[in-house]
Amino acid sequence: MKEQVRIGMLGLGTVGSGVVKVLAENGTEIEKRSGLPIRIKSIVVRDLEKERLVEVPAELLTTDAWQVVNDPEIDVIVEVMGGIEGTKDLLLTAFRNGKSVVTANKDLIAEHGDELILEATRNGCDFLYEASVGGGIPIIRPLRKDLAGNKISEVMGIVNGTTNYILTRMTQMGMAFEDALKEAQELGYAEANPASDVEGWDAGRKIAIVASLAFNSRVNFSDVDTEGITSITERDIDYAKQMGYAIKLIGSAKETENGSISAQVYPALVPQDHPLASVNGVYNAIFVRGNAIGEAMFLGLGAGQLPTASSVIGDIVEAVRNFHAGTRGKFLVDCYEQKTIQSSLENKNRFYLRLEVADQPGVLGAIAGKIGQHGVSIHTMFQKWTDSQTAEIVVITHEVREGSLRDALNELGDMEHVHAIKQTLRVVS
Amino acid sequence: MKEQVRIGMLGLGTVGSGVVKVLAENGTEIEKRSGLPIRIKSIVVRDLEKERLVEVPAELLTTDAWQVVNDPEIDVIVEVMGGIEGTKDLLLTAFRNGKSVVTANKDLIAEHGDELILEATRNGCDFLYEASVGGGIPIIRPLRKDLAGNKISEVMGIVNGTTNYILTRMTQMGMAFEDALKEAQELGYAEANPASDVEGWDAGRKIAIVASLAFNSRVNFSDVDTEGITSITERDIDYAKQMGYAIKLIGSAKETENGSISAQVYPALVPQDHPLASVNGVYNAIFVRGNAIGEAMFLGLGAGQLPTASSVIGDIVEAVRNFHAGTRGKFLVDCYEQKTIQSSLENKNRFYLRLEVADQPGVLGAIAGKIGQHGVSIHTMFQKWTDSQTAEIVVITHEVREGSLRDALNELGDMEHVHAIKQTLRVVS
Ligand SMILES: NC(=O)c1ccc[n+]([C@@H]2O[C@H](COP(=O)([O-])OP(=O)(O)OC[C@H]3O[C@@H](n4cnc5c(N)ncnc54)[C@H](OP(=O)(O)O)[C@@H]3O)[C@@H](O)[C@H]2O)c1
Ligand SMILES: NC(=O)c1ccc[n+]([C@@H]2O[C@H](COP(=O)([O-])OP(=O)(O)OC[C@H]3O[C@@H](n4cnc5c(N)ncnc54)[C@H](OP(=O)(O)O)[C@@H]3O)[C@@H](O)[C@H]2O)c1
Repeated sequence: MKEQVRIGMLGLGTVGSGVVKVLAENGTEIEKRSGLPIRIKSIVVRDLEKERLVEVPAELLTTDAWQVVNDPEIDVIVEVMGGIEGTKDLLLTAFRNGKSVVTANKDLIAEHGDELILEATRNGCDFLYEASVGGGIPIIRPLRKDLAGNKISEVMGIVNGTTNYILTRMTQMGMAFEDALKEAQELGYAEANPASDVEGWDAGRKIAIVASLAFNSRVNFSDVDTEGITSITERDIDYAKQMGYAIKLIGSAKETENGSISAQVYPALVPQDHPLASVNGVYNAIFVRGNAIGEAMFLGLGAGQLPTASSVIGDIVEAVRNFHAGTRGKFLVDCYEQKTIQSSLENKNRFYLRLEVADQPGVLGAIAGKIGQHGVSIHTMFQKWTDSQTAEIVVITHEVREGSLRDALNELGDMEHVHAIKQTLRVVS
Repeated sequence: MKEQVRIGMLGLGTVGSGVVKVLAENGTEIEKRSGLPIRIKSIVVRDLEKERLVEVPAELLTTDAWQVVNDPEIDVIVEVMGGIEGTKDLLLTAFRNGKSVVTANKDLIAEHGDELILEATRNGCDFLYEASVGGGIPIIRPLRKDLAGNKISEVMGIVNGTTNYILTRMTQMGMAFEDALKEAQELGYAEANPASDVEGWDAGRKIAIVASLAFNSRVNFSDVDTEGITSITERDIDYAKQMGYAIKLIGSAKETENGSISAQVYPALVPQDHPLASVNGVYNAIFVRGNAIGEAMFLGLGAGQLPTASSVIGDIVEAVRNFHAGTRGKFLVDCYEQKTIQSSLENKNRFYLRLEVADQPGVLGAIAGKIGQHGVSIHTMFQKWTDSQTAEIVVITHEVREGSLRDALNELGDMEHVHAIKQTLRVVS
């Protein structure tokens, strides 16, 4: 039996510093819970001279990642540097060298999860990635263990803190998207290039990861339909509020009745009394529906140095326990099925529409009639004058197949009195 | 290596039937996830003739629990029958016979957890009890695994569905306590003798269990100060609502700065924008504060046949995986410290007071002055006339040591113009 477990870290940025800090501060507890002392043997960085957020002995730092994944003394690789192709090669090598890997890298898993899991299994290694979804929130392990008795039918939630912060500020302060984004950038919540967050790609990667676990079938990022929040205006937020909804960026994955999977990211109206509606700021929350548990929700900080480190260390403890017990790589049974991906056109949803129309009698009726022809029935419809020529109409539909709504919208757009379809959003029931 | 795992069930009531049902319905998934086929070999009941909620082959049923815990073919005992002393003896024997045990029995664990864990450890067996707290909500495993990197400072939540249902009905429908209780009994949410729920004992047992895990030190039911909801009136609920609070039965366990533990159950005012305030009906939610994760909350159905079965089966899957991997009983490191229990008099809290006083000038000032002498400062105070002689005063204090508040209340009670101290409740910040 080993006397201690040696860790090689790839990266000492935000998350990496958090891991070093928490391992030091909570060391006694962590050692008790994992069964063996944990020592960091090497830490890979790009720049040896850079000032660090934590103090580490200079001799631990190296720029040679290959040396670390090939070091026979290292048992566990903690990958917190990011990157896709190069990082994948490093981790594949780590597995071939019999090392377990803990990572926070959602981009990598959403892209190459299957290849990495295969290599980990082949070599009897653990591959753990709790921190890749929901920051500090436990969701990967609950899906794999606590909910193992369930058939999961849906996973839905707020899985991107940046966009949730922006939408919260737009809602609470009446800010415009651009101003809220700028503020988020100044606070370090959003990157200089915010596309990955505001276009819904980051949320899409996370949804791909949880969907793969929930439905035991590989879902890649490319299988997820993503729609971001850049088109959301103060007006949409305001109308939603008036009708008792908050607008949230929702990631959703469902297994349909025919056994195929649909995965989407979209901004949606969430009813005020839904538990997700009051998840504000940088908080994230994930909602799971299973045939035994009913509904459960997991809430917490979706990113940040210490919350993310909390998840990374939970995984390190599991990896170390498995060293201790001689059970590494035993439980990788994640994706044993091959379910088809269903086009989101087949999904059923309620919709919010905002239209600019000619201010003329009979227009409302004509619109209702036209979309009715596509089986779209109207739940709420109200009209608001904008100027003497043009009126704005807001519609909430009953549940409808997305494809049928798309067809109806195409025809609506061609109608003489419809000037523009300004907004189309889903409504969470 | 074993080819299958055989289960002996003690009990086939609400939870037991749920376990049988879900094991049958989700059998394929569960077998994949646990690594071995699971077979129920025997089920112990009191009455062989009783009609059951699920169909089971008659030859599985027996009334002889001792025969089952002594059956060498049985690997895992699933205890869902309840009871304390007799059940403890059965489980101790199961451990001595090398069987792992999964249980939903909070009464037993809160009373004899230490003895059972010791015997499980001695015999290299698993002892798993996720279902004992929060029904379907994962909380035991998250505390032991996902949050293993944290020093936990507080666990707080709504852990009793019956009282939460009653308080929700009182709040939403303006019902009196007695009527809401009667309704809960008719719906099967409350027992004929509701004391264990409405006096806060059930919540106290659950808080003892989670506190033991969160702080790695044994907390027994007798260490928990409990206060129930029988004194809550429509008037308290109404005043709370006016000030922006909901009244909830809160279980709370904290580790204080000096390293001792305080554990309490009490009805409290929860601010409307606190995530716990909107946890209504039979939902439960548990809030955890740790030095890495920050805050996290776990929400779901706190009881019921299928949610509770979900947790029991999550544990069965873990027990079976451990058979599969040869790692039974490896990770029982729960209570390796011995922290002292601190009297709740040392706790600091904000308080809500409702007093009946003489309707005379200067009374408000006299009261404020008197409690000020004990270091109790007032945050909000308002007066409401009840009749020509008597006024009702509602006070919310700033944070104060509970002992000091108690002293202040004793003196207040002796004041000439104070007719009665009608209510004293804590306020969650
Ligand atoms: N930040 C969060 O809240 C959060 C939350 C969840 C998941 N994650 C994920 O965690 C990972 C790390 O995020 P982060 O925010 O900690 O990033 P970061 O602050 O940019 O840190 C990256 C670290 O990796 C090092 N590094 C990057 N590329 C390298 C290379 N090619 N060779 C050697 N060293 C390299 C950097 O070295 P230098 O310091 O020398 O530049 C730096 O120390 C990412 O996959 C991210 O998606 C982050
Ligand atoms: N119900 C919930 O939602 C829930 C949630 C969390 C935890 N729990 C816990 O789960 C346990 C079971 O609860 P439950 O609601 O399922 O109880 P229940 O419906 O009363 O069922 C108890 C079962 O155990 C059998 N039994 C009881 N005492 C026995 C004895 N001395 N010898 C043989 N068989 C005996 C009964 O047999 P007969 O059927 O023949 O009478 C019955 O099948 C309790 O510890 C409870 O605290 C329950």
